[in-house]
Amino acid sequence: MAAKHIDACLVSHLPNILYLTGFSGSNAALLISPSDVTLFTDPRYTIQANLESQGCRIQIVQGSALDALSSSLPRRELCRVGFEASKITVSQRDSLAKASPKKVRWIAWDGQVESLRMLKDASEIATMREAANIACSAWRDTLPLVKPGVRETDLAAEIEYRMRKMGAEGPSFDTIVASGERSAWPHARASCKLIGKNELVVFDLGAILRGYSSDLTRTVYVGKAPTEVKRWYKAVQEAQEAARSALHPGVNAESVDSAARSVLRREGLAKKFIHSTGHGLGLEVHESPRLGRGEKTILRKDMIVTVEPGVYFEGQGGIRIEDDALMTPSGAEFITDALRELIEIG
Amino acid sequence: MAAKHIDACLVSHLPNILYLTGFSGSNAALLISPSDVTLFTDPRYTIQANLESQGCRIQIVQGSALDALSSSLPRRELCRVGFEASKITVSQRDSLAKASPKKVRWIAWDGQVESLRMLKDASEIATMREAANIACSAWRDTLPLVKPGVRETDLAAEIEYRMRKMGAEGPSFDTIVASGERSAWPHARASCKLIGKNELVVFDLGAILRGYSSDLTRTVYVGKAPTEVKRWYKAVQEAQEAARSALHPGVNAESVDSAARSVLRREGLAKKFIHSTGHGLGLEVHESPRLGRGEKTILRKDMIVTVEPGVYFEGQGGIRIEDDALMTPSGAEFITDALRELIEIG
Repeated sequence: MAAKHIDACLVSHLPNILYLTGFSGSNAALLISPSDVTLFTDPRYTIQANLESQGCRIQIVQGSALDALSSSLPRRELCRVGFEASKITVSQRDSLAKASPKKVRWIAWDGQVESLRMLKDASEIATMREAANIACSAWRDTLPLVKPGVRETDLAAEIEYRMRKMGAEGPSFDTIVASGERSAWPHARASCKLIGKNELVVFDLGAILRGYSSDLTRTVYVGKAPTEVKRWYKAVQEAQEAARSALHPGVNAESVDSAARSVLRREGLAKKFIHSTGHGLGLEVHESPRLGRGEKTILRKDMIVTVEPGVYFEGQGGIRIEDDALMTPSGAEFITDALRELIEIG
Repeated sequence: MAAKHIDACLVSHLPNILYLTGFSGSNAALLISPSDVTLFTDPRYTIQANLESQGCRIQIVQGSALDALSSSLPRRELCRVGFEASKITVSQRDSLAKASPKKVRWIAWDGQVESLRMLKDASEIATMREAANIACSAWRDTLPLVKPGVRETDLAAEIEYRMRKMGAEGPSFDTIVASGERSAWPHARASCKLIGKNELVVFDLGAILRGYSSDLTRTVYVGKAPTEVKRWYKAVQEAQEAARSALHPGVNAESVDSAARSVLRREGLAKKFIHSTGHGLGLEVHESPRLGRGEKTILRKDMIVTVEPGVYFEGQGGIRIEDDALMTPSGAEFITDALRELIEIG
C-alpha cells in the first residue's frame, strides 16, 4: 500500500474476504487500513460474522455493504483508497463514488489478495489433499456404474452424492459427464443422454471441502477402444506427463502450457487442443496462475495447479486427463490419485 | 434502443445471453443491432454454440469474447453502444474502451433483458412448475430421515441426490440444513453438526431444471414444540399468507413486503424479520423484482416470485416458510406444494 501511496483498501471479492477473515457470507465488503480492518455486512449475517470472522471489527449495515463502507471513509483529509477494479462493476464504482466523501480518490488496485492466495500454507495443502481424495474416491466408487443405458445425469448424481457423504460442501462446479459426441464439448454438463456402446465418456468433477476445491478429469471408453482412440489417449497422457515434468519452481506458467502443446503438435493434434493446459486451484476453482499462452507468472513451491490437456473431435468425441499438482521444491506432485491409464468398460 | 439513441447493445451477463439465444457456455458476449445479432465465444464452445444458440450468428474468437466484440465495431461512423453497467467490471469496461474504435461511445444501459425475463411465457412456467415439484418431492422424500443424530450435510446430500435423480441439473444454491442455534442464521449452509433433540431445523432447497430454479423453505421441530415456538411459527405462516394475498397484478413489490411485515409487527416480531419478503425467480435464483422496502416495480401476471418471511432468535433458532408464487390475472398461486403446517418429529 505504501508503494502505491494508498491509505486504505477496499476488498469486495468474496473469496478474498473469506481468505482474509474467514467470513463466508454473500454480502460483504472489507476496509483495510494500516491501523484497522472492518468487515461490513447486513443483519442476515450478524451471528455468522461474529462466529466466523477473525482479525477484524464487524459493522452491520442496512442495504449495500459497499455503499456503507464508502460513506464511512474520513471526510476531512485526502484519502486514496484502492479497490479491486476487476471485481467491481461499473455501477458499483459509480455508487461508491457517489457515497464517498469528496476527498476520496479511488485507485484501481488488483490482484493483491490473489497473489497471496496462490501460495498455499500447510493447512490449506492438507485440506486440498483431502478434497482431492474425496473427488478420487467418488470417481472410483462410481466407475462400476458406468455402462450402456445409464443416464449421464444419474452418474453425476452418484458422484455428487458420494462426495457429499464424504464431507464435501458440494461440487466445485457442475459435474461433467459427457458421452459420445458430447465428449467433444470441453464444458458439456451432464445431460439426459444415455451412455451408448463404443463411446468415449469424459468425467470432470471436483469437491469443495472447507471452501477449497479439487478438480479431476478422467476419460473412459465403453467397449473395446479402436486403435485411433488409443493413440489419442496416449498422446494426451504424454502431454500431461510433459506438463507435469515442466512444473518447476522458477519457470513461467506459459512454458508448462508449451510443454503439453508440443507433445500434441508432434502427434499432429495441436489443433484439437482448444484450451489452456491448466489453472490455479484453491478457494476458487479457477484462480491464478493460468497455465496458458502469454501467462508470465513465475511458478513457486506451494502453488497448486491443474494439469489437463485434452483433444476434441467434432462428431466423434473427446479425451481429457486432469490432475491437481502441488509444486514442491524440486518439481510437482499430483495430489489426485486415480488410475490414469485408458479404462475400457465391458 | 431508439429512445436512448443507441445503435447497438452489448449483452454480457450470461443468464441474459442464455435467455436471448439459448447458449449456456461460460465465456460469451452478444452484440445486438437492429439488423444483426452476433454471439462471440471461444473455441471450447464451437460445437455447443452451434447446437444451442438460435437467432444469432456465431463468431469464435481467441481470448476475451468482450474484447473481440469491441474490436468488431464499425470504425468509420459514430456509434453509441449500450452496455450492462451493473454486470461489467471496471477493468472490463476499460478494456472494452481500449479495444473499440475511437468513434464508439459506451452508454450504461441496464436491466433491459431483466425486464423481459420477469414475465414468464407458458413454456417457462411449465418448466418452473416442474422444478418446483422436484424440490417438493425431494423434501417430502427426505423428511422421514430427519431425526436426532443425523448430520446436516447428510440430509443435504439426500435432498440433492433426489433432485438430481428426478432430472435436476443441480441445486439452485448451496442447500441449507440448519439446526438448533444455526437455524437462526438465515443463510447457514449445511454443516457437520448433528441434528439434536428439541431443535428447530430449517431446510432451504431448490432444483435447477433446464436452467430454471425453484426455491423452497420448510422448518420443522425435532421433538414437541414449546408454546412459544408454535406462536412464532403461526406468526410466520400468517405473514406468508398476508403476503400471498397482497400479490395482485398492479400493486407494487414493496406493498407485498409491508403486508408480511405488518403481521409480524402485530405479533411483536418485526425486529426478528431481518430480510426481504421475497425475490423474483427464473434463470437466476435471485432476480427482479425484489419484494422488499423501496422496490417500486409493479407486479404483473406471469411473474414468479418467492414469498419467504422468517423470524430469527440468536442462541435459540429461526423459522422461515418459503413458497414460489405465480402471478395470475386475479392474484397469485403457489406452485410449490408441500405441507405448510408445523411438523413435529418424534
